Order: sequence, then structure tokens, then C-alpha cells
Amino acid sequence: KNILIVPGDGIGQEVTEVGKKVLEKIAEKFGHEFTYDEALIGHVAIEATGNPLPDETLEKMRASDAVLFGAVGHPKYDNDPSAKVRPEQGLLKMRKELGLYANLRPIKLFDELLEASSIKPEILKGSDILFFRELTGDIYFGEKGRKNDGDTAYDIAEYSRFEVERIARKAFDAARTRRKKLCSVDKANVLETSRLWREVVQQLAPEYPDVEVEHMFVDSAAMMLIKDPRRFDVVVTANLFGDILTDEASQIAGSMGMLASASIGDSTGVYEPIHGSAHDITGKGIANPLASVLSAALLLDISFGLKEESDTIIAAVDKLLKDGFRTRDIADASTPENMILNTQAAG
Amino acid sequence: KNILIVPGDGIGQEVTEVGKKVLEKIAEKFGHEFTYDEALIGHVAIEATGNPLPDETLEKMRASDAVLFGAVGHPKYDNDPSAKVRPEQGLLKMRKELGLYANLRPIKLFDELLEASSIKPEILKGSDILFFRELTGDIYFGEKGRKNDGDTAYDIAEYSRFEVERIARKAFDAARTRRKKLCSVDKANVLETSRLWREVVQQLAPEYPDVEVEHMFVDSAAMMLIKDPRRFDVVVTANLFGDILTDEASQIAGSMGMLASASIGDSTGVYEPIHGSAHDITGKGIANPLASVLSAALLLDISFGLKEESDTIIAAVDKLLKDGFRTRDIADASTPENMILNTQAAG
Ligand SMILES: CC(C)[C@H](C(=O)O)[C@@H](O)C(=O)O
Ligand SMILES: CC(C)[C@H](C(=O)O)[C@@H](O)C(=O)O
Repeated sequence: KNILIVPGDGIGQEVTEVGKKVLEKIAEKFGHEFTYDEALIGHVAIEATGNPLPDETLEKMRASDAVLFGAVGHPKYDNDPSAKVRPEQGLLKMRKELGLYANLRPIKLFDELLEASSIKPEILKGSDILFFRELTGDIYFGEKGRKNDGDTAYDIAEYSRFEVERIARKAFDAARTRRKKLCSVDKANVLETSRLWREVVQQLAPEYPDVEVEHMFVDSAAMMLIKDPRRFDVVVTANLFGDILTDEASQIAGSMGMLASASIGDSTGVYEPIHGSAHDITGKGIANPLASVLSAALLLDISFGLKEESDTIIAAVDKLLKDGFRTRDIADASTPENMILNTQAAG
Repeated sequence: KNILIVPGDGIGQEVTEVGKKVLEKIAEKFGHEFTYDEALIGHVAIEATGNPLPDETLEKMRASDAVLFGAVGHPKYDNDPSAKVRPEQGLLKMRKELGLYANLRPIKLFDELLEASSIKPEILKGSDILFFRELTGDIYFGEKGRKNDGDTAYDIAEYSRFEVERIARKAFDAARTRRKKLCSVDKANVLETSRLWREVVQQLAPEYPDVEVEHMFVDSAAMMLIKDPRRFDVVVTANLFGDILTDEASQIAGSMGMLASASIGDSTGVYEPIHGSAHDITGKGIANPLASVLSAALLLDISFGLKEESDTIIAAVDKLLKDGFRTRDIADASTPENMILNTQAAG
């Protein structure tokens, strides 16, 4: 099996290195032969080639069996709204070109981190949510631009029945293997794309009579996630709403540094932390690499069907936490200094 | 002064009745002459006239000095994505017709409710955020529709420089009277409307050298609000992001039932709870009327300049809570049954 390592920008570099090490360890332990290649994306790709997603990277992605991805982004572009070439274009193009329409974001709290969150432990305990964020449509990919001499900006959100149906089916299928509850999040009281979304989910529901379906407006969902996270099992939503809600939901897991995601679709799957490039902490050795480690676990499970290997990683993370080790983002006042790990050691 | 009462749908009716009573009490106490009129909007207006915002209501709104508003919405339409006439159209049309471009949503925790939230008290303590949500632009008001025989839906988000500037100025001005921090929330790494938004805020910043400006992506903001609410002072954002973030932020105040909002702009101001019509609890007498009561306080302060009268209402709410009275949404296991008030009594 060939795995492409695409660290990208900022802490993407340091955490993906750790994710890769864990894959090597697992291969050794279970006697697998993984080969690795590496490629550029984002700001580092712009610096090297002028292109946030060089053709070479895309070709290597297509040729690989799975991609372990880091993060993209750089403050330089964030502060310059008129920049024409941006790191995020590489990420978005990758998603579109590889047809990665389903972004799975499992939000699960490790018992040991029950106290690490800003939310009360009694509210959190037992939370276990699986988000399906649609990843190749919506306002991310519609036409956008300026008119009136640049004085008016617009972005078009768009969804087709086909796009909604394929992600909804994935979510329904997943709900079947879990607590059989599906919450579809939209803003159907205002948006036409949401009304189509709701229509399609309603039409599919009778095919999954064992799954209990609920529709929730995105504003309510943003509130409910914090108020009562345990009421959610599988959540399916559009690209933009999924972006916002899953970042918010990271607080349910104690820290964004703990959350992995899988982007799947028509071909090669891409596995990445949900956190960003975090340039403010880059190179300090304090980034939590566990999101990348858990991304490696998702990769083994979903792309390679290696469930035992995947579970071994999750168990190792659990043990590390049980033994009291923490990176700064999940440490608290009671964590002794000598249990606070740097990025490499945490991996 | 003439106040128009527009209760709308669901619990809008019961809570607005209480808000009005409080206005009457204040007028009596301070020797003001307020006259009241009433008008229909939303589902009740559709039932009565076929129109979610009858012309008569709009005329009365224009003729009044301020509007005390309830909520709109009905499950009937939520479950029927193809309905052509919807209660929310009344709300949106009102906002547009009255030019209510600035929606102020103060998120402040009453000390007594420190324990009512799902967020830890030590994270919340001292939180005090003022949201400026843009209310007449964005994807709410752009063209929307279907193509390809109804199989593709689209919504256009749009912002002009002028629209961004006027709301941003209001937020800058407010920051000056507070802790002098402004956080502008956007998704400038993906959306063109957000890039224009960021550009305009950046261009205005030098005019407000005493205000510290920060730009944050909406996904990060959704996370940060829960992780560290105290880092925010004034937040300014687009219509859709404001809708989502303020509902989420309601958890900072313990309950959505505590949050009032002011919609202001070119003419008459409209004051309303941020909660919705909540048909699941309508008529049970358990709705928390304090959001409407606090909306009345905002009305007196902002539209009539009656600061003392407004503060009197806030102090009365504070006393009610200090005396231990609660509606169900803000009660907890330790609240004795006889301290749990019904909607009318709470007012
Ligand atoms: C970097 C950005 C474009 C991206 C997104 O919004 O999709 C990120 O926030 C994510 O969630 O993967
Ligand atoms: C009812 C709905 C259209 C409305 C909105 O999204 O603006 C509501 O959620 C609000 O926040 O006032």
C-alpha cells in the first residue's frame, strides 16, 4: 500500500510527521509493507511552485492508496483580502478534483479528557457524534466575484439533488451502524439550497425506516450542540454549516487538537486533523499531534480496512492519556510540568 | 410615544404580552404616556390575510415610534420545504422594508445564572459580548431559486461596500464605549463577500485608533465563543454568521430565554427576543418571558433614550433572579418547585 504524506503549512508539518511515524510503527508491528511518498500543498507549494496545488501533487494523490494530510493556510493571505493566489485554493481544488464529497468528523471525548473542556463534564459525558459534512458543493464552490467596480461582492451557494442524496445516504448508512438517529441540519426557513436539502432527506427517510430522522435549523443546532451534545448521534449537513458546527463541536472533545477527519468519495481518501495550520504555535513543539495520529487510525480503518490496526492506535492514545501525559492544549492546572509533552514525544 | 406590539407566532404571543405589561408598569411609575397598537405578522397573519406581512402591519410599523416584536414560524412550513408562502418571509420583509440593517444582540450573563449554563462557571464569569449582526443583506436577501427542472437550488450571497461600512461603523462606535475591542468575523479564506467585508473593516480601522481590531474566521469564532467567551467584547458579522453565532452564544447567558435584541436602521426600531416561536412549548405557560422584558428595556434605552427606565427593568430582572425565582429553562435541580414561575408570573 502506498501512502502519500502531504503536511502542508504551519503545524501541519510537525503533526503529520508524528502521524507518519505511527503508521510506520503499526506496519512494523503487524507486518505490513507501506511505502511513502511526500508532496506539497498550500503556502509551501506556492512558495516552491507558484501553485497551491501543483499538478505533481495531484497526480501523486491520484496514484496513492490514501493521503495523510496536514493543514493549509498562512496569515500573510488572511490579512490581504485581495490576494489572488491563496493556500486554501489548493485544499479546495484537491477536494473537488478527488471528488471528496463526504467529510466524516467523529467527535468523541476520551474519558480522560472529561475535565479538559470548557463544557461541564456532566453535560459531556458519553457524547459521541459523527458528523457528515458535505465537502464539494455549497457556497464553497459556486461562482464568486465582484461587480460594480469591485464595490459589490457575491458568492453563489448551489446544491443539486444528486449531491445531497449521496452524502445523505452515507449518513443514513452510518446511523444504521450506530444509535440509529440522524439529525439533518439546514436553514430551510430561509435558503432554497436548504429546502432542496430537506426535501431530499425527507424523500430518503422511508428507505431507512429503522433510522429516526430529525431536521434542525443551523442556529438551533449551534445552540443544542453545547446545551445537550448527547442528543446527537449522526449529523449530516452542508459544507459551510459543517465547517462551523464541527469546529464548535471540537469543544465537546476537549480540544481541536484531538479531532481527526476522513474525506472520502470517488477515489483516494484523504485523512487530516480538523485543526488548521496554527502559525501562532508553529515550530514551538507544543502542537498536539494526536489529531494527526487519529487521522492515521481513520486511514487504516476506512481506506485499508485494517480495523485491528486502527483500534491499536486509538487504544495507545487512550493509554497515553490515562498515564497522565498531555500536550499543552489539553493540560490543566493539575497536570504536573513533567507530564506535559512536546509534539514529537506525544506521538 | 406610540409603541406597536407585534406578537407573531407561538410563544411570541405569551412573552410579548408580558413585555407589554412591563412597559405599562414603567410608564405608570415614571409618568410617561405610551399608547399601544397591535398588528399581525407570520403564521397568524397568513391565516388571517394570506400575507405574512400585511400592508396594514407595515404601515403601522412605519407610523410607530418603536415595535415590540415576538417571534415568527410554524412547524407546518418547516416540514414542507415546497411551501410558497412562509411566516419567515414576513420577518425578512419587515427587516428590509424598515431598513433594519443592524441587529444588536447583547450577551450578558446575570450573575445568578452562572450555574444555569452547560459551560463551566469559571469560563463564563464576567462574559459580556455585544454582537452586531448585519440584518438586511447576505444570503438572506440575494436572489434564490431552482434550475434544471428543480433539481438544482441556489442562493446568492451579496454585500456592497456601503452595507458593510455602515454596520462596521456602528460596531466600532459601540466598541469605543466599551472595552475597545472589536472582533470582525468572516470566512475570508473562502468567500468573496467575506473578503470585501474584511477589506472594509481594515480600511475603517485607522479611523478608530483607540479600538483594537481582530479578524477571525467563523469556524474559529464558533469554537472560541465556547472555549473563551471573555476574550470577546464587540463582535461584528454578516447576517448568516450572526444568526448562527448568537444562537450559540445564548448558552453563555444560560438560556436563549434571557436574550433580547434590537434591530435598528433607517427608521422605527424593532425589539425582540432572539428565541423563536417554539411551538413545542406554546401555551404551556412555561416560556421564559424575560427576553421580551429585556427587549422592552432595550426599546426604552435605544429608541426613547430612557436610560433610567431601562435600567429599572434590568434591575428588576436581576432582583427576581436573586430572589431565587426561575422559569423552567433556567431552573436547575436545586430550584424548589414553588420558585418555578409560569410565564405570566415571571413577568
Ligand atoms: C481552510 C479552510 C478553507 C477549511 C474549510 O473551511 O473547509 C478548513 O476550515 C476546514 O474545515 O477544513
Ligand atoms: C426565523 C429566522 C428567519 C430568523 C433568522 O434567521 O434571521 C431567526 O432565526 C432570527 O435569528 O431572527
